[in-house]
Formats: sequence, structure tokens, C-alpha cells
Amino acid sequence: MHDAPTGTDRTPEYLTPAEALAHAIEIAADGPAYGPNPRVGCVVLAPGEGSDPRRVLATGIHRGAGTPHAEAAALTQAADAGVDVTGASVFVSLEPCDHQGRTGPCSEALLAAGVAEVTFAVPDPSTVAAGGAAHLAAAGVTVVGPTEVDDGPAHELVRAWLHSVTTGRPFVTLKMATTLDGRVAAADGTSRWVTSETARHHAHERRAEVDAILVGTGTVLADDPALTARAADARPDGSTRGVHQPLRVVLGRTEIPREARLRTTPGGRLVHLRTHDVHEALAELAALEVRHVLVEGGPRVAAQFLRAGLVDEVHAYVAPVLLGAGRPAVADLGLTSISQALRLEPTSVEVLGPDVLVVSRPRRASSDAHATPLTKEH
Amino acid sequence: MHDAPTGTDRTPEYLTPAEALAHAIEIAADGPAYGPNPRVGCVVLAPGEGSDPRRVLATGIHRGAGTPHAEAAALTQAADAGVDVTGASVFVSLEPCDHQGRTGPCSEALLAAGVAEVTFAVPDPSTVAAGGAAHLAAAGVTVVGPTEVDDGPAHELVRAWLHSVTTGRPFVTLKMATTLDGRVAAADGTSRWVTSETARHHAHERRAEVDAILVGTGTVLADDPALTARAADARPDGSTRGVHQPLRVVLGRTEIPREARLRTTPGGRLVHLRTHDVHEALAELAALEVRHVLVEGGPRVAAQFLRAGLVDEVHAYVAPVLLGAGRPAVADLGLTSISQALRLEPTSVEVLGPDVLVVSRPRRASSDAHATPLTKEH
Repeated sequence: MHDAPTGTDRTPEYLTPAEALAHAIEIAADGPAYGPNPRVGCVVLAPGEGSDPRRVLATGIHRGAGTPHAEAAALTQAADAGVDVTGASVFVSLEPCDHQGRTGPCSEALLAAGVAEVTFAVPDPSTVAAGGAAHLAAAGVTVVGPTEVDDGPAHELVRAWLHSVTTGRPFVTLKMATTLDGRVAAADGTSRWVTSETARHHAHERRAEVDAILVGTGTVLADDPALTARAADARPDGSTRGVHQPLRVVLGRTEIPREARLRTTPGGRLVHLRTHDVHEALAELAALEVRHVLVEGGPRVAAQFLRAGLVDEVHAYVAPVLLGAGRPAVADLGLTSISQALRLEPTSVEVLGPDVLVVSRPRRASSDAHATPLTKEH
Repeated sequence: MHDAPTGTDRTPEYLTPAEALAHAIEIAADGPAYGPNPRVGCVVLAPGEGSDPRRVLATGIHRGAGTPHAEAAALTQAADAGVDVTGASVFVSLEPCDHQGRTGPCSEALLAAGVAEVTFAVPDPSTVAAGGAAHLAAAGVTVVGPTEVDDGPAHELVRAWLHSVTTGRPFVTLKMATTLDGRVAAADGTSRWVTSETARHHAHERRAEVDAILVGTGTVLADDPALTARAADARPDGSTRGVHQPLRVVLGRTEIPREARLRTTPGGRLVHLRTHDVHEALAELAALEVRHVLVEGGPRVAAQFLRAGLVDEVHAYVAPVLLGAGRPAVADLGLTSISQALRLEPTSVEVLGPDVLVVSRPRRASSDAHATPLTKEH
């Protein structure tokens, strides 16, 4: 990430307080989506009141575990430039931490810098780091927030992280690449390729955003996948250089062959979980600081996670292809009637070359997906 | 259609020749998509030369078998209004017919009216009606066209008709309503409903555009469908009044129960084709003047049409639902390897409430669907 352009490069000289918060959320996305820490952005405005634009004194984002938090990065930027932030207003996408972890607590750093006001979008639900807002308020800083109470762009940014710290288990995305008739492989087991290069490229970009990719031993034996995240500009069979490589996790008791591409291809660390218990598997991954795991099959593993109610999002790449027979996307779920069908709430539909990616999530109790208008993304 | 607003209502007072041809194509769509005749639109411009706008003297569309052709309708409109079309320029979406059918030949009518110029978009390939352009040219009329040599809006308008008159068999659209994992019914056979009301409403609108709906006897026994086209403003279980009702065609040797909704619900005529030969079935439908048949299942009937290479378009309604088991969309196609997969060329992706409609067509030899950018429709 260090060579990539940062939010700072596109920060205007003046922003209103509302724009400053939106900008903090926007630049946070430049941080890595993977890793144990959330993506956070911070914008520091000159002292002032009301909704008029003010000078931007500094910005900062968090670039991953072991590097400064967004607030610390912004304060350092200001100090390096000789900019005084006494009395300044700070806008941050997530509640400042109150925790001495790999870095010092941001609440203390903000107090030491003498800022007057802190506005944050999303509250920190983690048991170890929360309390920054209360700490700041108790020390006399004006604290505004959380400004985003439910789903919104700031929540979306840290969705897997929020899920992980509140439930204690990784966020699970189930990925499928199917024909129009729901097949992921032909009758003889061949599956290269159901979807187009455009769709597969997209799937590789998603791999580079997660902490772990998980497949069953059956998929290792049937498909011999490398489970690497390829470089955005690489050919389909190309380089993984410079790309974050998620853990390669295999579920099941069967041995992984010595010559499996999982073993012979450079990539993320191989973790073999010799269990069929998906709860146990997620607990082990949580212990490895995995916040977000991408489950890529096969049908039985997909069914195990679905039956356990452990799928938080489904990425279905659907290709305009018919097979009439072959491996189904999902094995038996124990559902016999249409009234028992697992109905998901779609969040986006994206056209990828000839294919379509439908992203959906389990329905929340109060929602009616049939009344939800879909957004279409490019 | 007679009470619907017509193209004429939205016709500007002046049009350039290029706009006049585009407008002829646009208003043609107000005619019925079903029926033995093509949809045609006609615009008559005042005499003149060059590309400057000219006064629109008349417009006409074809409203279905037994009613005047578009050219005749336009000439009648002009005559009724006392407008002289001598020396006028005529723009028509399809080559004027040269055939005495249910109505007289348009070539003769245009000559009798004394028009100077005829421009048409699509040539008439039918053996009985073609030759209008040559007839007009031989009589001294300046003839321009065909202006659209391959796929385009004017071809799209008459696609099923063109296919039917050139191949001698109806255009076949295969419709499927599937879960993300390719199921059309649950393990116990229940299938109401996989897709949303929005998607089902859309499917009913498509029924009203075809000449026949076809299902297998297995679907009649399993689902007991009414196979009617419901009114656009009706409730899901509601009225069919005022809506064109396509033939209800059942394929297979099993008897149709006396109490089947196909028999007891008002709708299109019931045609039972006691065969499993899809070629024979299409020949019988062609003899009934069916230009476009919508095949709605079940899996075996879908597979029969696909294996015979007789599917011209696939309408796949995909719902964000998982079943894990149940009736597949398509039965065995005899394809064992991914290299044999039936790859289609998508033409549109449409979001319908929570569902997605993917429309695709068999690939033409020269095309590469993976390089074809998709259009997204609303």
C-alpha cells in the first residue's frame, strides 16, 4: 500500500465539517481491507464553529497492523509540517481507540495535541479498545457521534471487522461461480472455466481483500487450486507479486497431496483444519486474527456453512452457460419445500463481461427483500 | 391495442429524413409483438431533398393481422386529412410488401399515391411478400435501402418474425426461473414462488407478446399452471381481461387432467401436441401461424429444445435464493466436460426487484461473448 496514492493527495484545501467527515470515510478506503485492524480515516480542520468551510490542517489513514492509527498519522503529519492543531476539530470514521495495543491510545494522543472537538461516524464495539469517546469527553473535548447509527458508508468500510469483534468469529463470504443452471463443474468434474476472465479477475481482487480463503479437501483433490490472489495487472496465470496473500485454509480430514498447487505455488500460509465442524474451524481462524474468510467451495463445505447459519454474504458469479448436469453449487441443505428456501437480500448486481455478480446477504428479520430496490454497480 | 396511445401522438411536426426513419422504427413498436405479421412503422415527409427537416404529412403503424399495413395506414391518414402526398418521401421500418394477402400490396398503394421516394430499414425475406422495393424502383420511385444490414433496432423489432419466415419454424424463447443454485422447484416439487412478484409480473408481460406458451405434460401435472398472460395492472392472481392470450401448448403423450387449470381457467386455446419430437412440435405450431413460442419448462422439455439446437433466446430469471436440492432448471444435455458447455451470448441484464433477468442467445460463430460488453436495462 505504501506506494499507492493516498487520500491526502486528493484532499481539498478547505472543507466544511460535514465534508470533512465524509472525506475521512472516503480516504479510509485507501487502507488495506484485510488484516486484524479496521480501515479508518481522519481529517483535522482548523479551529472554528458552524458549517462554513475551514482549512484542512492534516489527514491520516490507517495502513494496517503495526502502523500508526489514522488519528496518530494525521497528528504526525501536522507536527512534521509545523502545523499547530491546538483547538482543532477532528473528524474520524471510527471512534478513537482508548487502548494501548501495538500503538498508543488515540484518545491520549488527541488530548496531548490539544484538539477541541472530535466527531466520529461509527462507535467502536470492541471490548478492549472502546471508550475513547467517553475518555475524550471526560477530559473536556467536545465529542460528536456516532453520526452513523446503522448501515452506511462508514459501517460498510469496517463491516467484516465490526462483525468479527462483536461476534468473535470471522465474517464469512461464500463465493460461487455457476452456470445459469447452477452448476460449478461439468459431469466429469472439469470446471475451468465456467466464468469469464473478467469475472475471475474480479474474484482475485476480492481474494486480496480478505484474510483467508477456505476450501474443502474435496475441492483440493478435484480442482487442485493454488488459492492465490493474483496481481491486478497480471495475466490469468500470472504473478502474485506485490499482492496481499490471504491464508490458504483447507477444511477436512483427508491429507493434502504433497504435489498440490496449494503447497507448490507461492502464496499465503497453508492452514489445514482437520475437522468438519465449521464452528470449530471459525474459532481456529479467529485465533489466527482472521477477520474475513472467503469460502470458495466445494458444494458440501458451502452447505455446511449455510446449514450452520454462518454465511454473512454470498458472491454468486453467474455465467450465461448451460451444462444440464454436473457438480451443483450447493449440496443438500436439508430443505424440502420452497417455503423453507434460504432467501437472501441482494445488495448489488454487477455485470462482469458476459457474467453477472449477484451479492446478497441473509435477510434481517425486519426486512422484505422483495421490496428492496437494488443498486447496480459498474 | 386500439385504445393505446399511438406513435402519431408523439410525432413532431418536422423531421429530417434520418429522424423520420428512426421515428418509423420507434412507432412500429406500438403494434402488437404477437401475431403472424411483423411490426412496421411508416412516416411520410413532404417532398424535398437533402437532410433538412421537412413537414410530417402522415404516420402509420401496423396493428396486427387483418388491419391495414403501416404504409396503407399512413396513406389513409393523409387522405382522410385531405393532405396531398404526391412527390412525398416515405420512410418505413420494413420493405413494403408486394403481396396480395389479407390486404392489398403496399407497393401498389404507394405507386397509386404518387410518392417519389421510399426508404426502408430491413429487407423483407419472405418468399410471398418480398419484391416491393424492386417493384417500386421499376416503376420509377427512388428506393433507398435496406439501411440496416445486420442487427439493429429495426431488426430487433421483427426478430421473431424474420426468424420465422426465413427458417419456417417459430422463434423459441426458453424461460427459466431459478435459484442462485439453479433450482426451479424444491425437493418436494413446490415452486411457488422462486422469484419475486416483480419478476413474475415481467414474465407475464412477456407471455402477452408471444403467440404460444409451451410446457411439458410433466409440468402440467407437477405445477398445474394456468398459462395465461395477466393484465399489467392486475394482482398476481388477477385478471387476464383485455390482454392478448397466447396459445397454451402442452407437449407429451400423457393425458391432461380434466380439472387442470389449463382447461378450467379462461385463456388462450389449448393445443395438446402428443409427441416428444420438438421438430415436429414446432412444425405444427408453424402451421398454426405461431411466430414466437415461449418454452416454460420443465427441465426435460428445456433439455429437448436445447439438445436439438432449437432455442433462440434464453430468459433466465435468477432469484437470490438457495435450495441445495430440488428440480434443476435443465435436465441432462449429454454434455460431460466443461469444454462442451453450451455457452450463450448475453444481450441484457435487468434487475427486477430482488431478482435478475439475464437474456442471452446462442453464440454466432464469429462472436466472442467474453469480449462483448453487456448493456444494462432498467
